[in-house]
Amino acid sequence: MTEVRLTRKGQATRDRIVAAASELMFERGVAGTSTDDVRAAAGVSTSQIYHYFSDKRTLVLAVIAHQTEAVLTTQEPLLSTLDSLEALRAWRDFLVALQQGYGCRGGCPIGSLGSELADVDDEARQAVATGYTRWETSIRAGLHAMRDRGDLRPDADPDRLALATLTALQGGLLLTQVRRDTVALEAALDSMIDHIGSFAPPR
Amino acid sequence: MTEVRLTRKGQATRDRIVAAASELMFERGVAGTSTDDVRAAAGVSTSQIYHYFSDKRTLVLAVIAHQTEAVLTTQEPLLSTLDSLEALRAWRDFLVALQQGYGCRGGCPIGSLGSELADVDDEARQAVATGYTRWETSIRAGLHAMRDRGDLRPDADPDRLALATLTALQGGLLLTQVRRDTVALEAALDSMIDHIGSFAPPR
Repeated sequence: MTEVRLTRKGQATRDRIVAAASELMFERGVAGTSTDDVRAAAGVSTSQIYHYFSDKRTLVLAVIAHQTEAVLTTQEPLLSTLDSLEALRAWRDFLVALQQGYGCRGGCPIGSLGSELADVDDEARQAVATGYTRWETSIRAGLHAMRDRGDLRPDADPDRLALATLTALQGGLLLTQVRRDTVALEAALDSMIDHIGSFAPPR
Repeated sequence: MTEVRLTRKGQATRDRIVAAASELMFERGVAGTSTDDVRAAAGVSTSQIYHYFSDKRTLVLAVIAHQTEAVLTTQEPLLSTLDSLEALRAWRDFLVALQQGYGCRGGCPIGSLGSELADVDDEARQAVATGYTRWETSIRAGLHAMRDRGDLRPDADPDRLALATLTALQGGLLLTQVRRDTVALEAALDSMIDHIGSFAPPR
């Protein structure tokens, strides 16, 4: 992708397009959103859209980056300090409450894009994978801190536990959306946190 | 939905339409599949499609039912006998090998439909939820058998553990599709099976 240096006004227009596209694609999916829908929602002209994004695929990559940032930022400061069972439980409670606040709609903004795009656009698939890796890295850091501190036994594998936790969370967000309740999300995260707790050294 | 009594030939035509629609929607998503694509792939006329399905939404419901059946049937006989840790591990190995056989593409045929449709078609959302419930019920049965036999302690909650396991599996299938490897699926299912194993009574 070509990096274009934007004026402050240009950056604001670009941001407005990405925000409008993100919202529409979150609600209707990528296939259900035309660049003309985005143009109308952002209140810009067709030539303005094509000034910033050469085609819909380029816009979709910007949407993935935007949603990754939004998802990770929403979970701060909890996500950066998952270094105790209490912190993991507080994060779990936060995620459940967040989904309930959304009426159990929408699922994961990154996961939905991943599910729709993984097999039809390899660049988009990789961008979603990168988003997951950032998420996973934050969870890893907390679990590594726990093991380093002796709160988890040396045989605990923080990397594998972090990936399993993110995976359970992704399943939980999908089932929340399909069932319209958070029971699956709660059961999966509780099981995973209990499993992490099973690596606590004997007192 | 109106039940129409079909001749054997009529049933075969209807099945061919549903199979073609399922394949196309699995590859391109529902939004990316037109009834005309389905017509061409099934080798039927437009009037034949509309004879069996009043509109695309009705066809989508038939696709969800078809994919649910296919997903559950593929896992038999393992899915009906998940009544030991060994059986759970054999099922996990089967699911991982299955995804590897698919080149880690496609994700869950039910989950993909759920992710795409849950917020835009409530009837489709409920049909996917029903599919998940059937899946969950099979997992439950095995865990109940384990508890009844004394292989799990009385404080184990087979229903919650079954839901958590299905949830971890769903996340694992999504991450398999996005990452193009089965590591997340393996980590999530292994964690969940170890967690189930933590309810084994002391020897």
